[in-house]
Amino acid sequence: MNRIDLNCDLGESFGAWRMGEDAALLALVSSANVACGFHAGDPAIMQHTVVLAAERGVAIGAHVSLPDLQGFGRREMAVTPAEVHAMTLYQLGALHAFARAAGTAVAHVKPHGALYNMAARDRALAEAIADAVRAFDPALALFGLAGSALLDAGRAVGLKVVSEAFADRRYRADGSLQPRREPDAVIDDADAATAQALRMAQRGEVTAVDGQRVALKADTLCLHGDGAHAVDFARRLRAALEAAGLRIAAPAAA
Amino acid sequence: MNRIDLNCDLGESFGAWRMGEDAALLALVSSANVACGFHAGDPAIMQHTVVLAAERGVAIGAHVSLPDLQGFGRREMAVTPAEVHAMTLYQLGALHAFARAAGTAVAHVKPHGALYNMAARDRALAEAIADAVRAFDPALALFGLAGSALLDAGRAVGLKVVSEAFADRRYRADGSLQPRREPDAVIDDADAATAQALRMAQRGEVTAVDGQRVALKADTLCLHGDGAHAVDFARRLRAALEAAGLRIAAPAAA
Amino acid sequence: MNRIDLNCDLGESFGAWRMGEDAALLALVSSANVACGFHAGDPAIMQHTVVLAAERGVAIGAHVSLPDLQGFGRREMAVTPAEVHAMTLYQLGALHAFARAAGTAVAHVKPHGALYNMAARDRALAEAIADAVRAFDPALALFGLAGSALLDAGRAVGLKVVSEAFADRRYRADGSLQPRREPDAVIDDADAATAQALRMAQRGEVTAVDGQRVALKADTLCLHGDGAHAVDFARRLRAALEAAGLRIAAPAAA
Amino acid sequence: MNRIDLNCDLGESFGAWRMGEDAALLALVSSANVACGFHAGDPAIMQHTVVLAAERGVAIGAHVSLPDLQGFGRREMAVTPAEVHAMTLYQLGALHAFARAAGTAVAHVKPHGALYNMAARDRALAEAIADAVRAFDPALALFGLAGSALLDAGRAVGLKVVSEAFADRRYRADGSLQPRREPDAVIDDADAATAQALRMAQRGEVTAVDGQRVALKADTLCLHGDGAHAVDFARRLRAALEAAGLRIAAPAAA
Repeated sequence: MNRIDLNCDLGESFGAWRMGEDAALLALVSSANVACGFHAGDPAIMQHTVVLAAERGVAIGAHVSLPDLQGFGRREMAVTPAEVHAMTLYQLGALHAFARAAGTAVAHVKPHGALYNMAARDRALAEAIADAVRAFDPALALFGLAGSALLDAGRAVGLKVVSEAFADRRYRADGSLQPRREPDAVIDDADAATAQALRMAQRGEVTAVDGQRVALKADTLCLHGDGAHAVDFARRLRAALEAAGLRIAAPAAA
Repeated sequence: MNRIDLNCDLGESFGAWRMGEDAALLALVSSANVACGFHAGDPAIMQHTVVLAAERGVAIGAHVSLPDLQGFGRREMAVTPAEVHAMTLYQLGALHAFARAAGTAVAHVKPHGALYNMAARDRALAEAIADAVRAFDPALALFGLAGSALLDAGRAVGLKVVSEAFADRRYRADGSLQPRREPDAVIDDADAATAQALRMAQRGEVTAVDGQRVALKADTLCLHGDGAHAVDFARRLRAALEAAGLRIAAPAAA
Repeated sequence: MNRIDLNCDLGESFGAWRMGEDAALLALVSSANVACGFHAGDPAIMQHTVVLAAERGVAIGAHVSLPDLQGFGRREMAVTPAEVHAMTLYQLGALHAFARAAGTAVAHVKPHGALYNMAARDRALAEAIADAVRAFDPALALFGLAGSALLDAGRAVGLKVVSEAFADRRYRADGSLQPRREPDAVIDDADAATAQALRMAQRGEVTAVDGQRVALKADTLCLHGDGAHAVDFARRLRAALEAAGLRIAAPAAA
Repeated sequence: MNRIDLNCDLGESFGAWRMGEDAALLALVSSANVACGFHAGDPAIMQHTVVLAAERGVAIGAHVSLPDLQGFGRREMAVTPAEVHAMTLYQLGALHAFARAAGTAVAHVKPHGALYNMAARDRALAEAIADAVRAFDPALALFGLAGSALLDAGRAVGLKVVSEAFADRRYRADGSLQPRREPDAVIDDADAATAQALRMAQRGEVTAVDGQRVALKADTLCLHGDGAHAVDFARRLRAALEAAGLRIAAPAAA
């Protein structure tokens, strides 16, 4: 385990509205999850984002979402597996077109927001996503929460799965994330977060909120891009990982 | 000129709303223009429509539109060539995903409604569409109004262009359609419409509203699907074309 | 208890798509729940529907929904009470404008689909709706499922609440609807449904699926409009109610 | 002519996206044009904006738009007068609900973006807006470009019309705005813009790009809010107007 992927969400502007520190983040990550129009991103922004990522050599992923612009894809919806299967294909194909036109290719799929959380615990929805990805291209990687139903579903259909962890989130003893409503959900101290990230990346373990040592494999770490502070932290984290001898690279990179 | 394509618009339902005689039309046409979510069609309906078309051996095309569900893509909008380029790629890619998952492929692109009309007369928008299609896949065919700027733009970038004509619409001496606001815009008599179709298909000419004989090449004829009457007419037209020795086949078919 | 309201959902077309037997239903009901653009209905359709209802002397209600055109407002979403409060005001105001322009007024509010179900069991969401209605106009009536949290919340803020029951749905001993996934959820026999409606209207009781006699007050009965069969049943039900001496009238009618 | 209104566009955020210096502008203007969900603004943002404006004593107006979130209402669309009439009522009513719930009232209507431009030159669309406003409440003021068809239509139906001018835009001899594509469309110098504003406010005239003196009545001046520079200019302009003895007040204010 001498390499790790760093991923972030990109292309989350929409129409006249701007969001995210895309340029700064592209210099730090190896994988970019590009919004596909359902929670953010319109065709022009998707095209621009894909071209930027390709220029920087950052792997491009489809950040597929529930159809909810107003809620930024963060509100869970009672969708059926068939609906999720179809919306995954739709968004993945749309992003693929921009990648193809830019002379590159989509490398991975990661569900966004509420769909990410739903697919982490609901096996039927997880299978709907995994099946859609495999039907489109079995060589694509599937990103999901470490220990989630989504990774299980991806493995079951033969996809390369990429286990995602968070440097600055605390974990429970069952490997799930401490919910944000809890006071200790987030690690505010940058050194502590970096230390957790290194331990997950190098030793595949984390200390849960109850003090237990938990196995937690991190193939990729998610970097946030909301605000200058987040970008600074991302920079420090990347530097610390590299100083520890880890190579930052997308999962499919040679 | 012993063959002709018959095309129709399909998959124009949305959510809980149904539209069109898709099953009846699939038995009559060789090419289907599938709505891609911007004027009609949601992911589930697109997936269903692609599977149906594939089962019937009907060639699948992306019916790309302006983003206007409420107006069904029929209201012209002041969009830029860059916006049109991106929205064409987006919709084409989305449909491609369903085709790929169904083990088939998209064969053509046809702009819908207001975008069809705008691309017929505005060379910059026509080039935006043609460039997007070629960037995605230079083997795709581009459907457009006979004599339109869209066909010119498609030819200019090396695409196979397919000249569309209407059996039941009257033409002006310059080859453009008589506007619908004119009393003689539509040919109501089925025999007259069939005769016009045969003449366009076999001799590449039509009689304009002012009596002039006009060259008008018809590689494909557009069949309407709104209502039982339209389907009946489509059936008669197909029978008449076959009786006249024409083979009904998609442009790319062997 | 010598009168009862009959209500139905109207104006559920959208753009080019048609839905519902609006004209037939307007002749049968005393209250119409008009879609407000979030699950169905666009401004032109709302305006048309309000004018039709006003002409027929049918009371007009705002059928407020979650923002989900694609899912027709039937998919539950994790919305906050603040979001529900604001979306209720928005839709209610929009409908009010058409009523005012037509020289009439909105008489009631009824949540639609998933929001109806959520507000029936979630007191915080129910209060968000009730508060919005009262803030807009305390003279409006609030329609909700008999025995629901929504009616409790409406009563708590001093609104006139209207208890809705279903002639053709079976009830459980706690007064809730037998879920549709159960085989005995729906009463298919028109005579049995009519008998249940009469008993709810006249005696305020119903026999639950387990045979218990349950108190269930019906101030209004919901008539479905999907298909000719539904309209026939609505016609028979109304005739039976009138034959039993019940007067059909909106809650606020003199 | 010893008073003038200052207006600005507010509430142009949407969902997770932020836009505009609303707090800063509310301290400077007497009228606020609030986005109504068609080009920007969602129900929660509208509610928040209305409450803020009411607290600051700023008059609230409905900033009605074409339905085009992605294009921010800036792309002209081929809509019919009937569609414009209905969309005006819809948005006006929606905003009215928030005003009513906040214990205040809508004071004016101003079309946004492309609709503003279309209504300035197209009398049928202008009448559609004016009729909708009057049908909703004949006491509302109608804001429009000085010399526009919209103001003519408003006057014709008896509405109070408010002639809008721009401090930092240049005018043509016919009173229309010099198009933005022209190099001299915008006045970059703050002093020159302030001088133009004062002259329009006090003497009802402006010097056109060709040097002619043109009558141009300014009942209200539009302040932009995009960026710190714009807010600074707005602050200077207000100070200059007050220093010149003008009272800043909404049209309906006592």
